[in-house]
Amino acid sequence: MNLILLDPSEVKGAYASLTDARRITHLREVHRASVGDHLTVGLQGGHMGKAQLIELNDTQATFTLENLNELPPPPLPVHLILALPRPRMLARTLEHVTALGVKNITLLHTKRVEKSYWQSPELRVEKIHHHLVLGLEQSRDTLLPSVTLCKGFRPFLEEQLPELLKERRGLVAHPGMQNACPRNIDGQIALLVGPEGGFIPWEIEKLLEAGCEGMHLGPRILRVETAVTALLSRLF
Amino acid sequence: MNLILLDPSEVKGAYASLTDARRITHLREVHRASVGDHLTVGLQGGHMGKAQLIELNDTQATFTLENLNELPPPPLPVHLILALPRPRMLARTLEHVTALGVKNITLLHTKRVEKSYWQSPELRVEKIHHHLVLGLEQSRDTLLPSVTLCKGFRPFLEEQLPELLKERRGLVAHPGMQNACPRNIDGQIALLVGPEGGFIPWEIEKLLEAGCEGMHLGPRILRVETAVTALLSRLF
Repeated sequence: MNLILLDPSEVKGAYASLTDARRITHLREVHRASVGDHLTVGLQGGHMGKAQLIELNDTQATFTLENLNELPPPPLPVHLILALPRPRMLARTLEHVTALGVKNITLLHTKRVEKSYWQSPELRVEKIHHHLVLGLEQSRDTLLPSVTLCKGFRPFLEEQLPELLKERRGLVAHPGMQNACPRNIDGQIALLVGPEGGFIPWEIEKLLEAGCEGMHLGPRILRVETAVTALLSRLF
Repeated sequence: MNLILLDPSEVKGAYASLTDARRITHLREVHRASVGDHLTVGLQGGHMGKAQLIELNDTQATFTLENLNELPPPPLPVHLILALPRPRMLARTLEHVTALGVKNITLLHTKRVEKSYWQSPELRVEKIHHHLVLGLEQSRDTLLPSVTLCKGFRPFLEEQLPELLKERRGLVAHPGMQNACPRNIDGQIALLVGPEGGFIPWEIEKLLEAGCEGMHLGPRILRVETAVTALLSRLF
């Protein structure tokens, strides 16, 4: 927790109070914080800066907010479209990509996504929110990503993708494509990443027809969470 | 498990037999393999290719090896020197970097590494081996990385580092360094990555004096596992 991310409901004027066990325990046991300490805080969706701890007990931590005038780090210019990974992988991947600065995430159904994954408790709004918050706390950022669930590949192809590609270069990461992942590029990107086992040939064909460019990350088969981090780091 | 990695002890002539529950369960429940199926196998340290499953029961899987004439994917030209992360992070980081093709790893003590981490069961030889194998199975590779534990920073600085830098460019990833992580570079690299909380100033000073170049990954504070993947993907 490199930043204490304050929900608007936790702020009253120049004071902020936390009452959740997770952050209070972290403040006490990891930060070993004491009254008087200055810690880095950020307002969800807003600025960051220092706050002084004025009260810390088992159930509450209270801060006085000082100059919150630091901007969060710049977001990555990418809309990530990710075939829904299995639940544990989803959780970690959301944390990685949020920490890296992704602000738009679409979780997509494709042929090789197991249908049962859509029933996972990890897809509950509060669970997703939790992993996004962990990513922001890690990387000192305040802007929550927006996450959209898209349970049909064909509606995505016919409705969302054309909209996305109006203002973005579409890139599909897929083994065996001719071109390597481009490096250090400018402009807005829609980045599509398939499931374990990859997109099926029909899906790739349709994505390329829609105007996406195929690219690969090399001969190694990577886990989704490793691949997504590697792609984002190479692209931007 | 995109590759069944065969230990030399599991191979007899043109046959290979597995008897461990982990891989047998995976073959049955994930691959849903049946006798007659052809699966991708690799000899530890050697070639890869197809093998036919000729027997599969609760306790044993037997294959006939066919043309094992495929080379494993090329390794990354890097020696990774990683401040020892906390145990769960170590496990995942070993899997990521092995999958990415790192073949030389030194786990290093630095001032901000908690001493208790060196007592963790995750550092037992068989535990480390297990995570390396998972990384190779993921990325279809057969060459096990070598992992060295280095429990003193000063001996590393005075003895190992000068040797490493004789034939390698040394790069230290550290927040606040002037230069950004270089991209797509050639030649052998020694890549140093600090612990949560970073190297201390004295350590950075000594590493730079020894001939390493400092570099940063941007304004975001990343977890070790995310940072290492991002660094490797950007460098190579």
